[in-house]
Amino acid sequence: MGNADYLYPSTNDHQCAHRVAIPPPQPFFKSFKNSLKETFFPDDPLRQFKNKTPSRKFILGLGYFLPILDWAPRYSLQFLKADLIAGITIASLAIPQGISYAKLANLPPILGLYSSFIPPLVYAMMGSSRDLAVGTVAVASLLTASMLGQEVNASENPTLYLHLAFTATLFAGLLQASLGLLRLGFIVDFLSHATIVGFMAGAATVVCLQQLKGILGLDHFTQSTDIISVLRSVFTQTDESKRRPKFFWISAMAPLASIILGSLLVFLTHAEKHGVQVIGNLKKGLNPPSFGDFVFTSPYMSTAAKTGMITGIIALAEGIAVGRSFAMFKHYHVDGNKEMVAIGTMNIVGSCFSCYLTTGPFSRSAVNFNAGCKTAMSNVIMAIAVMFTLLFLTPLFHYTPLVVLSAIIIAAILGLIDYEAAICLWKVDKFDFVVCMSAYIGVVFASVEVGLIIAVAISVLRLLLFVARPRTIVLGNIPNSTIYRNVEQYPKTDNVPGVLILEIDAPIYFANSSYLRERISRWIDEEEDKPKSTEETSLQYVILDMSAVGNIDTSGISMLEEVKKTIDRRGLKLVLANPGAEVMKKLNKSKFLENIGQEWIYLTVGEAVEACNYKLHTCKPDSTKKESQPWNNV
Amino acid sequence: MGNADYLYPSTNDHQCAHRVAIPPPQPFFKSFKNSLKETFFPDDPLRQFKNKTPSRKFILGLGYFLPILDWAPRYSLQFLKADLIAGITIASLAIPQGISYAKLANLPPILGLYSSFIPPLVYAMMGSSRDLAVGTVAVASLLTASMLGQEVNASENPTLYLHLAFTATLFAGLLQASLGLLRLGFIVDFLSHATIVGFMAGAATVVCLQQLKGILGLDHFTQSTDIISVLRSVFTQTDESKRRPKFFWISAMAPLASIILGSLLVFLTHAEKHGVQVIGNLKKGLNPPSFGDFVFTSPYMSTAAKTGMITGIIALAEGIAVGRSFAMFKHYHVDGNKEMVAIGTMNIVGSCFSCYLTTGPFSRSAVNFNAGCKTAMSNVIMAIAVMFTLLFLTPLFHYTPLVVLSAIIIAAILGLIDYEAAICLWKVDKFDFVVCMSAYIGVVFASVEVGLIIAVAISVLRLLLFVARPRTIVLGNIPNSTIYRNVEQYPKTDNVPGVLILEIDAPIYFANSSYLRERISRWIDEEEDKPKSTEETSLQYVILDMSAVGNIDTSGISMLEEVKKTIDRRGLKLVLANPGAEVMKKLNKSKFLENIGQEWIYLTVGEAVEACNYKLHTCKPDSTKKESQPWNNV
Repeated sequence: MGNADYLYPSTNDHQCAHRVAIPPPQPFFKSFKNSLKETFFPDDPLRQFKNKTPSRKFILGLGYFLPILDWAPRYSLQFLKADLIAGITIASLAIPQGISYAKLANLPPILGLYSSFIPPLVYAMMGSSRDLAVGTVAVASLLTASMLGQEVNASENPTLYLHLAFTATLFAGLLQASLGLLRLGFIVDFLSHATIVGFMAGAATVVCLQQLKGILGLDHFTQSTDIISVLRSVFTQTDESKRRPKFFWISAMAPLASIILGSLLVFLTHAEKHGVQVIGNLKKGLNPPSFGDFVFTSPYMSTAAKTGMITGIIALAEGIAVGRSFAMFKHYHVDGNKEMVAIGTMNIVGSCFSCYLTTGPFSRSAVNFNAGCKTAMSNVIMAIAVMFTLLFLTPLFHYTPLVVLSAIIIAAILGLIDYEAAICLWKVDKFDFVVCMSAYIGVVFASVEVGLIIAVAISVLRLLLFVARPRTIVLGNIPNSTIYRNVEQYPKTDNVPGVLILEIDAPIYFANSSYLRERISRWIDEEEDKPKSTEETSLQYVILDMSAVGNIDTSGISMLEEVKKTIDRRGLKLVLANPGAEVMKKLNKSKFLENIGQEWIYLTVGEAVEACNYKLHTCKPDSTKKESQPWNNV
Repeated sequence: MGNADYLYPSTNDHQCAHRVAIPPPQPFFKSFKNSLKETFFPDDPLRQFKNKTPSRKFILGLGYFLPILDWAPRYSLQFLKADLIAGITIASLAIPQGISYAKLANLPPILGLYSSFIPPLVYAMMGSSRDLAVGTVAVASLLTASMLGQEVNASENPTLYLHLAFTATLFAGLLQASLGLLRLGFIVDFLSHATIVGFMAGAATVVCLQQLKGILGLDHFTQSTDIISVLRSVFTQTDESKRRPKFFWISAMAPLASIILGSLLVFLTHAEKHGVQVIGNLKKGLNPPSFGDFVFTSPYMSTAAKTGMITGIIALAEGIAVGRSFAMFKHYHVDGNKEMVAIGTMNIVGSCFSCYLTTGPFSRSAVNFNAGCKTAMSNVIMAIAVMFTLLFLTPLFHYTPLVVLSAIIIAAILGLIDYEAAICLWKVDKFDFVVCMSAYIGVVFASVEVGLIIAVAISVLRLLLFVARPRTIVLGNIPNSTIYRNVEQYPKTDNVPGVLILEIDAPIYFANSSYLRERISRWIDEEEDKPKSTEETSLQYVILDMSAVGNIDTSGISMLEEVKKTIDRRGLKLVLANPGAEVMKKLNKSKFLENIGQEWIYLTVGEAVEACNYKLHTCKPDSTKKESQPWNNV
């Protein structure tokens, strides 16, 4: 039935072994197109456009960029009821947090409200997550303050500082949208989980120290510390809101409650006249346009661009991760690249209307999720509530003491120090722990950028080290089987006398070919140096198990050629087992296949050992044949 | 016999499968020490020091850094005879090449002779290669000229330029020696074969264009072009010297012969008075000390340091590669890190005695090899011949026309354009060809540094892409066996109904965990979307073959957890096959093993399929059992 194609008689005709196939040749452009597609379109977003009429394609395309067109027609009154509750809940969190984070970014408090009005409306149209609640975040606010602050002092030159913040937001949005459009979303993946844990904890430490300085200055306002401790105990539950959904109302309402209580207290006691700093006047009215305020002159533009890039990437990483995890809970799919376009667009539009950087913060989205939101409509409700506040309620914030804002920041940010995750990293993967700690130490002792760059560099170094120093593993026979496995993982495996079986655990590339050459000859040296009883067979065959060699380049092929020469010179024989499609293709093109001879390439280690063994015991009649050895039973 | 430890009854008790072992736990410091050792001491250089007395250890250590102590006691008259011939041969090449390359570096010609005197003596004591002939090289000379020339004009300020060249050589030597001492030699491996082919060809193109400009200016000296064409035809054989050893005398002697002929011609016709530029006076005497000339003041020092770093790395790559390839021919071993220390030391010492950067050039070492050298003594003979030239023969070079030097440079350097290698790269590995061409284009159209950086960046990007976009391969059953392989490589494999088998071809790290999550669910979607005949079993099991997954980090484990959740939700079952030692260790520590259940992890894909199949056909009695399918025969 054609099965015979797989079989060919081995040189000694003692039995049939499987032939290792060279994959059918593919035209260059086809394989090039395939690998481009796998690199940039792994999720195959164009699948649904296949075999559709042009008008249908247009509607699908519009629906692709504006998911609201998909869900709005099916929107029901029941959904509205749920979204109304969720929207009002997150608005009550968004207003105090917005004001607080704007202060953290050294921006006017009103910006926090502006940023909770326009961007959520844009996201509601373009976003594909149903649970993301849009808003400003503590870490990006801190980064804005520290990076822009290097160039312009916010208190000396507030207007320039404000304009730089808009410019940075514009750059962040442009970067985010273009990463999505160019399908380069995987750049965000280079911020590993470990990096983010360390980075967030470092940023939280810095923010807390900053805020404490402010709070401790107010020593004659005795209640301040109490407020903090109360707030802290309440707020640390925010982090647990996913685990204890019944308590989320407390965490959702606590910031607003403390703002109302604090403001009332100041208003009644006139504490603002005794040194307690308050917010003061907030301008009534909706977002003023700011597209005339962008700064495109040197040297400020480069600072704004750099700030935008870094904050944009961090904010993106958070938004995507949050969107994905809630989508997983509710069993729907979030398209990473589409989300990037949505988040980018909302920041571009936001930067034109007096907003600074927004994304989908974890804490607010968790509250949204727990409050039972159904669609992105909850963001619209929140925006309407914020609009109402901007139009009518801003005078109420006049007496809000700044210390309450500091407390809100600290409470929200303490949850970012996830020491349990760090302990888990240490237990499971020491290298990830090092990455995490270097991000933390870098952020705390140097700066946020330095911490981030060190952590990413170490993470990338790990990938490079994996390839540069691949493990070579000695395989042994698992008793009573034809299976060969790592002798360290399976200590009871048997060695095959006269045969050394090595598994190479990474692609063979320029970065490791010298290493592998040296390491393989050291394995052979060590095998030959082993004290042997006289009756034991000396080393005759070296089998390289190529199962885990995903690819090979020209340096790698030269290495194999050299290894073959060295092995030949020692009077041994090189045998390959199970080279994959890519490797076979290249070995064939480079003529190495002719050089080694295709009869020395086997489909499995078991078949290779069997063939070696057969030759060992028939071609060398002087060697003692031991019938009791397991490989004769194969 | 304890073999039973490997076996455990599978859940349905229908047969025994092999248990996947969790490797025995290792104390943290032991495994840390092991991985450090594998990273930095893959060749285990301390092996020979084990179990020796302290005095013996000292002698071995001395012999380690000064290999001359090993071979000098065994040096025989027969060796001397061979080395004498080889040494004089390479001296006859070293003198004209030295002068020419010094001119290429915009340095006084005499420096080429100085650099062929001291460094070979140092190398003869410390080097472990028997065939390397030490000297200056064209590419490093060109790099010196172009990089130092950006800061200081060699004709306007020759003294400062000279001192900067010494300083750059010192930095190069320090870098080279410390790379060797710190066991960081693998950094050199990042200059892949493809990068070097492209880089050399680019540098050769630039040098040829530079030299042709000079030569074409001399249009009334009619013989010049003829000399070039003659020399070129002779010299292109240098490159083939390894292939045609009988002709190597021509290539070895041609430069000296043309210098003698050219000088005689100028001397007899007094062409120097008709516009033909000649070398002019060369100072008699040995190397003057130059350790007082180093420039450690800003801004020159940073230029010198940068030049030293780049030329040092390039020179090191050439020296190590040349040493290794001749060692392979003669079946001895060259220790890369030891060679780095030797090459570094010879440059440090050289920079203190008016030498500029030296290494082991390929062409000169090939001549040395073909002339029958036995030990590094041939370098000593060459140094003595050069010393003799410096002391007595320098006046003879007065009339040497510069055009002959240009011709020597062009002839030597044309061999560096290895278009055949480039064609081979295109055939075997398109990506390597891209790296090669980008190095070439970068060097020719931008600058040597830019070309180098682009090529290395693209090479590293390839490594990262390998990890960031691993291939996921669908496996099928090879008829009449329990072997499962890539369905594209083996088109005649059979699918197993109800089971999707995916192989992941790279370690699972932060950089690919999002991709793999999306890609795996797309495979499942596509499998479920396949039109099926009614009697066919729908998808029930997803087997992930982990054989090629060398490692996993915490992001990767989270990914597996999410994939498991998604698969569970679809009513399918996740099965793992053959996870390696590292992966099993981490899955165990992270509790994923408990989560998935160890009975869902199998040693081979074959056993996993068998178990799935058994459950499929016993637990779901409504599904039609087809006895003819191959997996029932397993």
